Amino acid sequence: MNIGFLGLGNMGGPMARNLLKAGHALSVFDLSATAVAAAVEAGATAVASPAELAQRNVEVIISMLPASAHVKAVYLGEDGLLAHVRPGVLLIDCSTIDPISAREVAKAAAEHGNPMLDAPVSGGTGGAEAGTLTFMVGGSAGDFALAQPLLGAMGKNIVHCGDTGNGQVAKVANNMLLGISMIGVAEAMSLGVALGMDAKVLAGVINTSSGRCWSSDTYNPFPGVLENAPASRGYSGGFGSDLMLKDLGLATEAARAVRQPVLLGALAQQLYQGFSLQGHGGLDFSAIIELYRKPE
Amino acid sequence: MNIGFLGLGNMGGPMARNLLKAGHALSVFDLSATAVAAAVEAGATAVASPAELAQRNVEVIISMLPASAHVKAVYLGEDGLLAHVRPGVLLIDCSTIDPISAREVAKAAAEHGNPMLDAPVSGGTGGAEAGTLTFMVGGSAGDFALAQPLLGAMGKNIVHCGDTGNGQVAKVANNMLLGISMIGVAEAMSLGVALGMDAKVLAGVINTSSGRCWSSDTYNPFPGVLENAPASRGYSGGFGSDLMLKDLGLATEAARAVRQPVLLGALAQQLYQGFSLQGHGGLDFSAIIELYRKPE
Amino acid sequence: MNIGFLGLGNMGGPMARNLLKAGHALSVFDLSATAVAAAVEAGATAVASPAELAQRNVEVIISMLPASAHVKAVYLGEDGLLAHVRPGVLLIDCSTIDPISAREVAKAAAEHGNPMLDAPVSGGTGGAEAGTLTFMVGGSAGDFALAQPLLGAMGKNIVHCGDTGNGQVAKVANNMLLGISMIGVAEAMSLGVALGMDAKVLAGVINTSSGRCWSSDTYNPFPGVLENAPASRGYSGGFGSDLMLKDLGLATEAARAVRQPVLLGALAQQLYQGFSLQGHGGLDFSAIIELYRKPE
Amino acid sequence: MNIGFLGLGNMGGPMARNLLKAGHALSVFDLSATAVAAAVEAGATAVASPAELAQRNVEVIISMLPASAHVKAVYLGEDGLLAHVRPGVLLIDCSTIDPISAREVAKAAAEHGNPMLDAPVSGGTGGAEAGTLTFMVGGSAGDFALAQPLLGAMGKNIVHCGDTGNGQVAKVANNMLLGISMIGVAEAMSLGVALGMDAKVLAGVINTSSGRCWSSDTYNPFPGVLENAPASRGYSGGFGSDLMLKDLGLATEAARAVRQPVLLGALAQQLYQGFSLQGHGGLDFSAIIELYRKPE
Repeated sequence: MNIGFLGLGNMGGPMARNLLKAGHALSVFDLSATAVAAAVEAGATAVASPAELAQRNVEVIISMLPASAHVKAVYLGEDGLLAHVRPGVLLIDCSTIDPISAREVAKAAAEHGNPMLDAPVSGGTGGAEAGTLTFMVGGSAGDFALAQPLLGAMGKNIVHCGDTGNGQVAKVANNMLLGISMIGVAEAMSLGVALGMDAKVLAGVINTSSGRCWSSDTYNPFPGVLENAPASRGYSGGFGSDLMLKDLGLATEAARAVRQPVLLGALAQQLYQGFSLQGHGGLDFSAIIELYRKPE
Repeated sequence: MNIGFLGLGNMGGPMARNLLKAGHALSVFDLSATAVAAAVEAGATAVASPAELAQRNVEVIISMLPASAHVKAVYLGEDGLLAHVRPGVLLIDCSTIDPISAREVAKAAAEHGNPMLDAPVSGGTGGAEAGTLTFMVGGSAGDFALAQPLLGAMGKNIVHCGDTGNGQVAKVANNMLLGISMIGVAEAMSLGVALGMDAKVLAGVINTSSGRCWSSDTYNPFPGVLENAPASRGYSGGFGSDLMLKDLGLATEAARAVRQPVLLGALAQQLYQGFSLQGHGGLDFSAIIELYRKPE
Repeated sequence: MNIGFLGLGNMGGPMARNLLKAGHALSVFDLSATAVAAAVEAGATAVASPAELAQRNVEVIISMLPASAHVKAVYLGEDGLLAHVRPGVLLIDCSTIDPISAREVAKAAAEHGNPMLDAPVSGGTGGAEAGTLTFMVGGSAGDFALAQPLLGAMGKNIVHCGDTGNGQVAKVANNMLLGISMIGVAEAMSLGVALGMDAKVLAGVINTSSGRCWSSDTYNPFPGVLENAPASRGYSGGFGSDLMLKDLGLATEAARAVRQPVLLGALAQQLYQGFSLQGHGGLDFSAIIELYRKPE
Repeated sequence: MNIGFLGLGNMGGPMARNLLKAGHALSVFDLSATAVAAAVEAGATAVASPAELAQRNVEVIISMLPASAHVKAVYLGEDGLLAHVRPGVLLIDCSTIDPISAREVAKAAAEHGNPMLDAPVSGGTGGAEAGTLTFMVGGSAGDFALAQPLLGAMGKNIVHCGDTGNGQVAKVANNMLLGISMIGVAEAMSLGVALGMDAKVLAGVINTSSGRCWSSDTYNPFPGVLENAPASRGYSGGFGSDLMLKDLGLATEAARAVRQPVLLGALAQQLYQGFSLQGHGGLDFSAIIELYRKPE
């Protein structure tokens, strides 16, 4: 297929390469010349602007951008995609943004005759490289069916979450719960150890009991419990605290828009905000346990 | 074996029956004549006081009491067990109490020549009836080995958590995390639905993603998501909100004693406290989601 | 002076009347014909659009609008004030909006040659009627000096808070603290009464001690403590819970933008959000104490 | 009058000296020989134990002890005051303890024929030295009238809070509100400054507006706002963070006992607990603002 791809960062770069590997033809755009050069080397064709990309003979356009403001600018801007793209082209935005903005952009696309899917991912840069991302997709069943094989070239778990915006809803709801669980595990592990228990034994009890969760059995924040978790390598790599902070901000903002209380979610956001203020935003998000341990 | 058993309530009653079924001889005590009569009918011998129970020729004494004050009174009281029991008899307290009190009682027992284990359970009245409880056991490896077959007659998962008090530590740490997770799931599910997503689809995404936890995949609080969860039968049965409140109180109290912060744990406790004040303490603890939904 | 005035709602209506009483000539605009008619009856001249208002021979334009989106539309819209107003006209926005938007609009005004002040108020509809509002003003000292007599016709306490945006900063910081204090007083009073103390005696102790605050000594949320507080008339009148919710939302959003943690502020926002969900958003904000009292 | 005085620490020492200055005869007891020697030098008579103190010909006994456990031991212990004191002697406990323990001790005293008052203080070591403490007194009106002149020798504000225990209730309710307000001011000031406002100007706005409170106008935590506040001398002196932590613990414990939610109170407790864990428990309690500011 002829595909347009915008946004070749840490996530978008490897995603584009996986599409090329799967045999698709890609026209790509990014503000970073280095990122574009890497994609061209892998077989893509560079274009000079979103407008030019929209005017090429593409069947699908995929975007992977940092935040809502970029998505709005690229799609709705005066010289943006919708001003130039041919009706009928399928638009897939893989950025993580708030559901309300996602619906706003999709509505404008629909008015222009373009079907659109919101398809945020989880799985991090590792999953993007390996082509094992999870895609949470919002939009019509028909558009989802069209996109599925394409997304399958970049991920292994492609979930239809319902109508437009629901991909973003699923992502913010899941990640808010993840932030809460991670802090919950940090508190439970730190409390148990402070009361005299061995960390591995405690994790063992929790993982076979009602406290069981991904943050405990797969990504335990206590150093030494899981050999391959960021906690056992100084909280490097993984999913950065500032990215968790961004997602918690999207969740609390979406909650505010619909007047839905999220008390633990808001407190989790504040704790990551404080952690960031103290200069630790670059550490893996499981490092939040440092708030609960005596400094060395 | 000759066993003394104190406390024949909703949990202790069926536990005692399972010991009788396994062929042990039981001397039992409870303040409720009805509870004693039921145990006698099942084959136990009634005694008139903890003191009398201590003076019978028992090899092990097991207690299952509501709170720390009862445990202290029964073991340390002027006419209590330690004042009368023969040194060497193994003491097993299955009550859920704070770890610091558990260690205090075990220390007094040791000074009197009695080995003691703290062995709180999870699994609820259903697990007590079925003999499928989990026991979290604190005490020496040798005493644990002695107790294991006995506990095996009442449960199926017998975990050694380390030294004295660590059974209680494991229980309060796990249950604090459980309370946090449950509220986290309640917030995530309510937020997702308020933003327009279907509850079952959202639970499906979470359960295969990083938000996965027991409170979502086994005990989801949103009505209709899991057919067999209390949420689908009006929050009846299950683990009462006031019991969760008790356990969260034990966790925050233990945290206070060792000056260990537990921010989400404390907020969870307060939310259950407010829920109880509004008159809902008798509902299953997953009913906490009602704080997050518009009243009908 | 010749003044343009936009926004004749519950606050803007009486503010405009006080300017008329002080002898100023007013050109007014509002979407509500009723509101415009009332102002005309009081001596104002009606105009048909912000654009027309901008083109009249006014020296100052004052706006009082519900939220940031309205302010941006009125000032920055294609057919908005800045597209039509003569350079040099002083712009004063009395709306309560987030500081970042306020600075954005003021910057656009400056580029167009118009000095601008942000001047949100406190004092409620009562203060607007009586001309006793407090104005918190951000902008240059020179512009503040020009505006002071004008604002003095509508209020009695006109405070210069520093550069552009700082009027909004002062307002959101003060009101966030107000929300926290009010909930703090609600908790302290409810706790004291639950522990057996008389509410008036407790308020008396607090008001002469280190817990002293406006929410306790001037606006106590416990019924019967202060005869003239909303608590003693069923929480009617006063400052609505949903208005407090709006201000707490502005505070947490501004905090998010600069990555500044506000833990109690965020929890206060969530509590008002839950209170609104339960259907109580129309009650005075001191009614939040109902979360802490047994339902009757 | 002949007075017995137990507990000659940082608070009790100067309180006893003020009673001696007022012409009373004091028999004193403390575990610290140094503390006793200082009191003797000031004119007191030393006794060897609480029991001996109880047997001397005293009309009133005053105690000032660190925590509930000490109060219970001194009054209720096997060789404690109640075992030896003559019925009719008035007992006044000035310690800060939980209301429930205070009522328990007073009930035992009443059964022994001794009227008892709980009379915790505020005002710190400075107020103890200067004789300007505030006493919050629980007990009968008659006993209060008897104690008033005596307490007047040590303080200047003697408040009758109602029946037994209500002195403690007033103290924990006030101090919980104080802890919440202080953190609220810390958040509001830090947010305002992060958004570009001058700290002194912001404090000025707050202090004449609805955010006004003792923590802002008398004890502002932001360095440089108030010349004489601990914030302007590196948070030395004043009321220690660990003392605030103790009082917040008493408040949340009392709340737990009566199932009364205190959400902000519990969060305040946790924040001080974390602050203590990080090693800052010795700083004045206004230093909690450091959680909200970028480390230097």
